[in-house]
Amino acid sequence: MAPVTIKDIAKRCGVGVSTVSRALNNHPDINPETKAKIMEVIHETGFLPNDSARYLKRTETNTIALVVKGISNPFFTSMIRIMEDYVQKKSYATILRHVTAEENEVTVALSLIKERKLKGIVFLGGDFTHDPMLLSQIRVPYVFSTIGNLDERPEGEAACANIAVDDVEASRQAVDYLIGLGHRRIGIVAEGLHVPSVGQLRYRGYRLALERRGITVDDHLVYEITEGGERYSMKNGYIAAKALLAANPDMTAVFCISDVLAIGACRAIAESGKSIPGDVSVIGFDGIEEGQYYIPKLTTVRQPVEEMSKESIRLLFDMIEKKEKPRNIIMPAQLLIGESSGPVKKT
Amino acid sequence: MAPVTIKDIAKRCGVGVSTVSRALNNHPDINPETKAKIMEVIHETGFLPNDSARYLKRTETNTIALVVKGISNPFFTSMIRIMEDYVQKKSYATILRHVTAEENEVTVALSLIKERKLKGIVFLGGDFTHDPMLLSQIRVPYVFSTIGNLDERPEGEAACANIAVDDVEASRQAVDYLIGLGHRRIGIVAEGLHVPSVGQLRYRGYRLALERRGITVDDHLVYEITEGGERYSMKNGYIAAKALLAANPDMTAVFCISDVLAIGACRAIAESGKSIPGDVSVIGFDGIEEGQYYIPKLTTVRQPVEEMSKESIRLLFDMIEKKEKPRNIIMPAQLLIGESSGPVKKT
Repeated sequence: MAPVTIKDIAKRCGVGVSTVSRALNNHPDINPETKAKIMEVIHETGFLPNDSARYLKRTETNTIALVVKGISNPFFTSMIRIMEDYVQKKSYATILRHVTAEENEVTVALSLIKERKLKGIVFLGGDFTHDPMLLSQIRVPYVFSTIGNLDERPEGEAACANIAVDDVEASRQAVDYLIGLGHRRIGIVAEGLHVPSVGQLRYRGYRLALERRGITVDDHLVYEITEGGERYSMKNGYIAAKALLAANPDMTAVFCISDVLAIGACRAIAESGKSIPGDVSVIGFDGIEEGQYYIPKLTTVRQPVEEMSKESIRLLFDMIEKKEKPRNIIMPAQLLIGESSGPVKKT
Repeated sequence: MAPVTIKDIAKRCGVGVSTVSRALNNHPDINPETKAKIMEVIHETGFLPNDSARYLKRTETNTIALVVKGISNPFFTSMIRIMEDYVQKKSYATILRHVTAEENEVTVALSLIKERKLKGIVFLGGDFTHDPMLLSQIRVPYVFSTIGNLDERPEGEAACANIAVDDVEASRQAVDYLIGLGHRRIGIVAEGLHVPSVGQLRYRGYRLALERRGITVDDHLVYEITEGGERYSMKNGYIAAKALLAANPDMTAVFCISDVLAIGACRAIAESGKSIPGDVSVIGFDGIEEGQYYIPKLTTVRQPVEEMSKESIRLLFDMIEKKEKPRNIIMPAQLLIGESSGPVKKT
């Protein structure tokens, strides 16, 4: 027996297809009795609404996965939304998989591939280096996104597809801007200083800025987050800034390697009775929406989230369709001057 | 041939199982040569790491779906994280499905069930009323979470499992607290006033508070967000507060039906040159982490996010295991006094 279509339903009810569609979509512009009748016929026939049928067909064949480390970071939330939209337009389905700090994202990906017959994977966030042997077991196209410039990574990853900003240079510019405003006692809230990571790259940019301007790096001004769980959190930024302020009463600026950290840091500075940027300037990294509605509006290194998301997923599809080989794409970051930074206070 | 186990790998390499595990998890505490050897053997044998094997087995049989409307709302992000953890402990896998404002979440759920052989579903956010005929087609247990008190919903949903706070009463208390501080010209930033929704319930609480205190509801003080896409956004809160301020120079307080809206509203008030709470008090709804790091710290109606998430998923599993029937659970909301509200300014 041929499957029931929306036309069959319309015919049986003596209405047009668009009326059936309105009934299915809970559209207010429909006679309640007509709707009740349509829903009854649908129920009797076991008709699967068109939407679901289409979706079903899609996902049986074509699915890609987004494997995300740090899912509560709003920076990733925006990226996920943009990528999902793109995937949907391609008539593919998306599986979103959240990886905890303790899990190995490549291992997770390998099991997802077997299980779901994936066509491709985008890795968002997470480790900087991946075991080449494990990587070589991934038999579908995959793209690393916002994990750091490939040129900085070990050789095993050189052949991978990768999208990132130049974390070192973007961070150097941000800190150089602070130095230009007269700041000399500049703190940093960072993560992963001793392991290859974007945190390490951004810290390297900080050091580079100071060194080029002849300012000695003072370890008392460096706060490294080591707590497990989600390291990039407002709470960790808050704790870090409290500690930096206590240890360095003369600190006049702080560079945070993400906006969520910067927001936590601002709160700690305000609570200590200091003003932003009057007493202490704060710079974040990412350019999340929250930063622009914060009081004060955050000065930040904006990653081009929309373009990076689209480029990541476009590159993946080009690889799936064999139009492209894996390549390393560096996108421009931009220093966005908000209200949280200003000239050093004259003493 | 029996599948290769981690013990086989350990034996072939002449090391302990824990060493193989360290190699697989990129643990730093391992001799690089040993690690290389282990990875080579793993590669040769095509061994699928234990984690993935476990995960694979799990998901083949047992998967639940979280169907979320409003995925960029940080309130849902926290809930998702807590639920995922719980599901993982139950050795189930989670599929996360983001539903756009235009999609019907029940239709999406129906196709997911067919496609993935789901054991159960949690609906987060989304419409208040669902077509009973479509609902009756869902043959697996499901729970509505944070969609509103079932007692307020149409009869067709009476038999559904549901977790919510009492949105009307919690909103009434928040606005009553403002009235107690001397405020009379209280605005509201709301959504869905004319359709059954949590927005409508919270608006009803606002009206109730005013009416009980003998204050006339002034429509000029009511801003309804009607933009498509994600309605609960900082941008919409910002636009709404700008409009309310322009139309009501005498407004001294504003109740926003979510924290993201309240954050946007605060920014608009600050930009207009008014102080919070000196000139205008602001109250949000949800109790997201961002609100507690905002300057000023948000006064808000805190939904017990942790308890609601756990209760939602626990109820779902109890239904899957046939220990529980669907029921309506109302959890206590709590007015959290921050720094964004205070006594009305004396004129």
